[in-house]
Amino acid sequence: MAVKTAIMGATGAVGAELLTLLEERNFPVGELRVLASHRSAGKKLKFKGEDITVQELTHDSFEGIDLVLASAGGSISREFAPSAVKAGAIVVDNTSEFRMTEGVPLVVPEVNPEAIKEHKGIIANPNCSTIIMVLPVFPIHKAFGVKRAVISTYQAASGAGAKAMQELLDETRAYLDNKPFERTVIPHPYAFNLFAHNSGMGDNGYCQEETKMVKETQKMFCEPNFRVTATCVRVPVLRAHSESLNLELEKDVSVEEVYEVLKAAEGVEILEDRAANRWPMPLDATSKDPVFVGRVRKDISQANTIEMWITGDQIRKGAALNAIQIAEKLFC
Amino acid sequence: MAVKTAIMGATGAVGAELLTLLEERNFPVGELRVLASHRSAGKKLKFKGEDITVQELTHDSFEGIDLVLASAGGSISREFAPSAVKAGAIVVDNTSEFRMTEGVPLVVPEVNPEAIKEHKGIIANPNCSTIIMVLPVFPIHKAFGVKRAVISTYQAASGAGAKAMQELLDETRAYLDNKPFERTVIPHPYAFNLFAHNSGMGDNGYCQEETKMVKETQKMFCEPNFRVTATCVRVPVLRAHSESLNLELEKDVSVEEVYEVLKAAEGVEILEDRAANRWPMPLDATSKDPVFVGRVRKDISQANTIEMWITGDQIRKGAALNAIQIAEKLFC
Repeated sequence: MAVKTAIMGATGAVGAELLTLLEERNFPVGELRVLASHRSAGKKLKFKGEDITVQELTHDSFEGIDLVLASAGGSISREFAPSAVKAGAIVVDNTSEFRMTEGVPLVVPEVNPEAIKEHKGIIANPNCSTIIMVLPVFPIHKAFGVKRAVISTYQAASGAGAKAMQELLDETRAYLDNKPFERTVIPHPYAFNLFAHNSGMGDNGYCQEETKMVKETQKMFCEPNFRVTATCVRVPVLRAHSESLNLELEKDVSVEEVYEVLKAAEGVEILEDRAANRWPMPLDATSKDPVFVGRVRKDISQANTIEMWITGDQIRKGAALNAIQIAEKLFC
Repeated sequence: MAVKTAIMGATGAVGAELLTLLEERNFPVGELRVLASHRSAGKKLKFKGEDITVQELTHDSFEGIDLVLASAGGSISREFAPSAVKAGAIVVDNTSEFRMTEGVPLVVPEVNPEAIKEHKGIIANPNCSTIIMVLPVFPIHKAFGVKRAVISTYQAASGAGAKAMQELLDETRAYLDNKPFERTVIPHPYAFNLFAHNSGMGDNGYCQEETKMVKETQKMFCEPNFRVTATCVRVPVLRAHSESLNLELEKDVSVEEVYEVLKAAEGVEILEDRAANRWPMPLDATSKDPVFVGRVRKDISQANTIEMWITGDQIRKGAALNAIQIAEKLFC
């Protein structure tokens, strides 16, 4: 089957990765339409060695299209996804726009693939930090029951887009050269610095990113009372998120039992060398598919509780790869 | 009173900060003897505008000395601190050598100043991550009772010394210039990367840094069963540690009550602008005395639990300042 595919937001960091992955995974792309703002229209992008011309995104862009991979931002998805659905396409949306909308499945294929079939034209891709977290947490939850999860994140620049990655590099060079630097993307000094995630702050003191990790996990697990809290932090790393996880379980479980579950878990890879004191690092995950896990240990402060450390590529499994995997479940 | 003061390890990052702080705080220094390895002997250091010549550290270095500020590493303290005590000096030791030794007070002046007077010649300065954590945690514990603390750290290069800070800068420049780089201090790629704290790994899966945070807190609080767990991570930041704290309290407490306690807490400063989404960052803490606190909120995953975010200068309050404050309690 040849899938007539459109990419919305093809010129961004996730858009570029979508093109890479469609090619790398040999997704059965029929026609490929790359859509972006008026500003980017006419640009050439490479796909399977050929030039593809970026077209301006309009409400008429979706005629004959089977699949739309959307990553142009929430307001763009809000405006154009309904037109794509009306034209008969299925939209896999990377933005936060429809994630919590009732009737829109929110899917990580390793977690809740069964939700895909309930779609009414739109399927939402979760937030990057959520995706990376649920990959190891869901199988542990299934096996042993997670009573409560306490998360702290170490998030890369890529979550704020390709321009943020470039600004981190540019600002760092300016810092090293002792030159002034004017930030236009990231609101805080970023060279050799870090800051609480700058998404909007809620009345309860949680920022949007943290609330996404909580609410999206609850939706995917179909457990509106699943207990999870998160502190989200942006660190000067380019494109892989790391997370420190503290998981209170329903029962006493050995470290070995947890490793057994993780070894069998889809999309998860254990990466550690205990003797060499070597554990997953963001550079290990960069441009890789799995979420890498290590440092599983019993929490000495509380019974039935484990600590672990994970890292996953924000652009790939945190966004583009997850979307393509959903598309594969739909069309392959 | 003029205090005849010796600095062991005067040429390191903490040694340099000790000199700065002795001058800045107008500590009543009588004679000042700066001691270092044979290799550094003869070097000149500045103190109050005058050159001081580094002397080689020997067992005879302490004659007539009242106070030794030691930060040359654990093995050096092990070898030379007893000689200093024998010569009649009091040693304030920045290394981990004597921290858990019975009879050696482990002191953060804002937490347990009363322990100072029990010394038998040596007083230990806690680990930097511990000091920064207990500054806000202790007053909250006193006010409301902390049942359990879950910590994740974001630690700066300075904790591994001045050479690690320089290596982070050098490696980052090499990365930006796409040039090869040979690390000699830090065991992992550090430019735009982070890694689990590289101190030795214990059988229980906690690294030494994490175990220090647990055991040293228990010792200072005089509560050997105080429940705390930590995940320690080295991030590409130069000299301030940040920490994400999740504190389960004995009772339900409002966010305002926690802020009241923190406002009154010695050595703690609230730094935030909720409307501007602005919270403490390591660059805020760099070369500053206080531990900066913000983002206090109720944990939505569990009753009677709060989350908060802190940052403090690793070299200053995490090491040199704390040592000088102990010395001030002894001599001023």
